[in-house]
Amino acid sequence: MVKRKGDMRRGTVLGIDVGATKVRIALVSPQGRPGEGATFAVPRGVKPDGLAKMIAGHASELMSRSRRKIIAAGAGVPGHVTNDRRTLLATVNIGWGRTRFAQILERRLGVPAVLENDVNAAALGEQRYGAAKGALHVICLFVGTGLGGGVVTGGKLLRGATGNAGELGHLLFRMDGRTCGCGRRGCVEAYAAGSNISEHYRDLTGTPGLNPSQVSERALGGDKVAVRVMKDARDALVTLIVSLQTTFDAEFVVLGGGVIDKLGRHFEEVRKQACAYFTGMWKSPVRIVRSKLGPDAGVLGAAALARELF
Amino acid sequence: MVKRKGDMRRGTVLGIDVGATKVRIALVSPQGRPGEGATFAVPRGVKPDGLAKMIAGHASELMSRSRRKIIAAGAGVPGHVTNDRRTLLATVNIGWGRTRFAQILERRLGVPAVLENDVNAAALGEQRYGAAKGALHVICLFVGTGLGGGVVTGGKLLRGATGNAGELGHLLFRMDGRTCGCGRRGCVEAYAAGSNISEHYRDLTGTPGLNPSQVSERALGGDKVAVRVMKDARDALVTLIVSLQTTFDAEFVVLGGGVIDKLGRHFEEVRKQACAYFTGMWKSPVRIVRSKLGPDAGVLGAAALARELF
Repeated sequence: MVKRKGDMRRGTVLGIDVGATKVRIALVSPQGRPGEGATFAVPRGVKPDGLAKMIAGHASELMSRSRRKIIAAGAGVPGHVTNDRRTLLATVNIGWGRTRFAQILERRLGVPAVLENDVNAAALGEQRYGAAKGALHVICLFVGTGLGGGVVTGGKLLRGATGNAGELGHLLFRMDGRTCGCGRRGCVEAYAAGSNISEHYRDLTGTPGLNPSQVSERALGGDKVAVRVMKDARDALVTLIVSLQTTFDAEFVVLGGGVIDKLGRHFEEVRKQACAYFTGMWKSPVRIVRSKLGPDAGVLGAAALARELF
Repeated sequence: MVKRKGDMRRGTVLGIDVGATKVRIALVSPQGRPGEGATFAVPRGVKPDGLAKMIAGHASELMSRSRRKIIAAGAGVPGHVTNDRRTLLATVNIGWGRTRFAQILERRLGVPAVLENDVNAAALGEQRYGAAKGALHVICLFVGTGLGGGVVTGGKLLRGATGNAGELGHLLFRMDGRTCGCGRRGCVEAYAAGSNISEHYRDLTGTPGLNPSQVSERALGGDKVAVRVMKDARDALVTLIVSLQTTFDAEFVVLGGGVIDKLGRHFEEVRKQACAYFTGMWKSPVRIVRSKLGPDAGVLGAAALARELF
């Protein structure tokens, strides 16, 4: 089943991005261009083999439509992936326990498959084909409902001893600060992620149900609590960017995700504040930019990994 | 001049550790054991070639005493080293500008030479031969007068795009906090390093000249300001350890340097507090330990690099 490297580099690869509620797949060319694709909902309570079967069904439809065959598959999955990239240890969102999902995908798809944490895959996508294309040292941060990220150093994804490296939303911003969904206190995510901006405002005012854009609008309108909540969100993200760049000496810091996409002013302020730390003796050619691939980042990163590994 | 790899792995290498005030050199065996060594003062205002000449003089003495010849040299130097490991960009302490110090050493020593940032070299020493021997993912922090560190990931030193990665004393602890020697505000170093503990106490009380041990003793005696200064030092170091471990998923966090060596209670409290962050869903096999090589770490790390590079 395993093909020669030359074939792999030229052929079409299936990129898969398994989210909490939906799956996105696409046939990806050797140049990293997403071709035919499909998006479908993750049925509540679906088992791993059931999901693999659905993925294989959609994939064979894409193949017959485009008259291309896939030679490998890469899947971004929402959880901790072991260092051999074959086992998903746990997914809080889909509710699976330890799952040998690469093997399950291989059985259904008939080609070699590899797993990666979803946010790591998206970071690799931006580094290989997106906002940081051509760079070898890249920090990616995605600020949406939660805050995740990945680091590419020397052209490789940082994975650590057990595959759990790059949990970038959980660097400490304010020791003994707000309780984070992870159980710790004071994580960057607890201040800067979308759901946390909403909750922080609710906790201080008793007003629930405002999204980050609405909190931001209130801040612009002079609401003092909203100003404070948005300042904390900004400070947490700046602290994260400065600490990571000081650690990694990257060429690019790429920011993406819903909060960044929707709050242009927030992004610009964060960028300006963070850049101010890299002047004087800290002068650095680093560039802080927006992500380019949007929802395709995960699919393309997973495909790149599959292409390069087999 | 360049020998075959096999020779390099077997022969004796010269390890050099250039500090702000003194130079330490040693002949290092293939097993990473420091043999004959010498330590001498850096003369005020010495030029690069003058220092290289002194190093070569001491090295030839060591060689004739031990009847061993060196086949390469590695030098830890106090500053930013370019990614080809041949040029030192600047040393605040010795006062040199951009210096092609590898070439200068090679001319004086007659063997290939390589440079590395001094703290990075020490981190590599602890990973190759010291407290984290055998591990591939290691974070090292040295808390002395200043606070420096280095990271080994996948067995390699983290260097970043321009060789300036791993400036671990300058992750942000408290935005808009104390002014750091680097020009930024709120760096971990500004709270946790030895000189900063002294200065912090002085700034709050007007009492100058106390060293960290004395501030720590006052804290134990109930001095409220000293308690606060030591708590800030501890919190800054815990924040750093937690943020780095969350980023790198290392097997070891190694702590060394004067403040750690002298303040056993401080180290134990920091270790305990940091470990508490790696429980529950963050459970990790990481071990937080003391450094083992003491002042030999830099010499041994620089020697390891020379042995492995040529």
